[in-house]
Amino acid sequence: MAVERWVRFARSGEDGFGKLEGETIVAFSGDMFDGSARPTGDTFAAADVRLLTPCVPTKMIGLWNNFGALATKLGLARPTHPLYFFKAPSSFLAVGEPIRTPASYAGRVAFEGELGIVIGKRCSNANAADAAAAIFGYTCVNDVTAIDLLDADPSFAQWSRSKSFDGFGVFGPAIATGLDVGSLVIRTMLDGTERQNMPVSDMTIAPVDIVRSISADMTLVPGDVIACGTSVGVGKMKPGSTVEVCVDEIGTLRNQFLGADTLAALA
Amino acid sequence: MAVERWVRFARSGEDGFGKLEGETIVAFSGDMFDGSARPTGDTFAAADVRLLTPCVPTKMIGLWNNFGALATKLGLARPTHPLYFFKAPSSFLAVGEPIRTPASYAGRVAFEGELGIVIGKRCSNANAADAAAAIFGYTCVNDVTAIDLLDADPSFAQWSRSKSFDGFGVFGPAIATGLDVGSLVIRTMLDGTERQNMPVSDMTIAPVDIVRSISADMTLVPGDVIACGTSVGVGKMKPGSTVEVCVDEIGTLRNQFLGADTLAALA
Repeated sequence: MAVERWVRFARSGEDGFGKLEGETIVAFSGDMFDGSARPTGDTFAAADVRLLTPCVPTKMIGLWNNFGALATKLGLARPTHPLYFFKAPSSFLAVGEPIRTPASYAGRVAFEGELGIVIGKRCSNANAADAAAAIFGYTCVNDVTAIDLLDADPSFAQWSRSKSFDGFGVFGPAIATGLDVGSLVIRTMLDGTERQNMPVSDMTIAPVDIVRSISADMTLVPGDVIACGTSVGVGKMKPGSTVEVCVDEIGTLRNQFLGADTLAALA
Repeated sequence: MAVERWVRFARSGEDGFGKLEGETIVAFSGDMFDGSARPTGDTFAAADVRLLTPCVPTKMIGLWNNFGALATKLGLARPTHPLYFFKAPSSFLAVGEPIRTPASYAGRVAFEGELGIVIGKRCSNANAADAAAAIFGYTCVNDVTAIDLLDADPSFAQWSRSKSFDGFGVFGPAIATGLDVGSLVIRTMLDGTERQNMPVSDMTIAPVDIVRSISADMTLVPGDVIACGTSVGVGKMKPGSTVEVCVDEIGTLRNQFLGADTLAALA
């Protein structure tokens, strides 16, 4: 099965979607997920469009503690069911858009490179075969986190809040289909230096099992994204830093982090 | 300002919205939130339509520990910023629909009666006046919870999972506007017996302050719902139980809980 890369884009004030082929976007109409997508006949230079998030999830689920190396480092037990939080839809951000430090928060902001599962079929209480069939493809995720808020209240871990500031749910640039997911490696670069190198083979719960397990908790629908968790090497972004989450078969999710000083200068 | 009650409904296979006036629904077209709503001239008997959730939130936020009586009972400190989780969009359920016990979970399922704030205007980093203006109205919420999952893993409190099974995000029947929110009382009835009686005046963080504070964390958009937290009297639903969350000025959110036996008999 050939690898294909699906993107959404804005061009001349309209949104569209299509396949990325080298430096060219082949435009499609219909629905990305239900088999109705057909080429419109239009092609554009990728440089001439602005990429959007490659889908519009009704929910983004983020896993905690799903890599062996991180569990070993932190002395954590390996979960048998995914442990997760949600990232708000208002947090979604596309490749190339600036990640802005929140006006209301002066603490550390961390990058977390992750693999994102993109759901293509409605899926509830799935078995392994149905879970595999429900996966449309994979994308890159930067699960940005206001880490100083997470444990700021000793009575309640603030996962939802620390993960959901506007712009903290970064994913893209494409959804790649036809991948051998078990062979993928997610790498995170901070200002050009590799900070994370995470083989999918080190995941405690592999993508198909993640979908199967979560589909027993809730119905997954086309476009939903599950970020599979991060591993060792998470770090703080400094104002001006550029973070790249790279999976060779998917592409590079590159975003710059703007600190309060830059935002004040732009205002 | 007169109290008005907005509902969404399904009739003859189409969805609509309008105002509930006694036993009659006055149909509207346009947008419920942006001031463009106008009567279509059609009216229906409320008994002839099926009520839907009164809006379609992009996110439902649920507060923890926001009532004085509950904080006192549990010996909890009073938060100064809302402590919250998200309920998945796949969990949303309308008045009158059965709450189904999850196929994958055999533990206790609890009701939690709450007041829901419905956002009417896009709202980010709001001051108190803008936060007040961003509130369209209020609805009733049953924040259904798989309580045995919440602390099932000692390393990670599973708020997202225990709150987000399909059908666990119950709200309605209407959105009431023009209320004096500080004077409201939320009551929860289990099989006709009052189990919760919660004056809004006992909230640690009042609705306008909730919106102001959360708008500093993330952008709120029209239709988003914030469930303001529950108080003492939360309890388990038995198969066949009927739960009613009642706010006199809004209406009664009535749903039956179906256990595994009933679901097996229906299958």
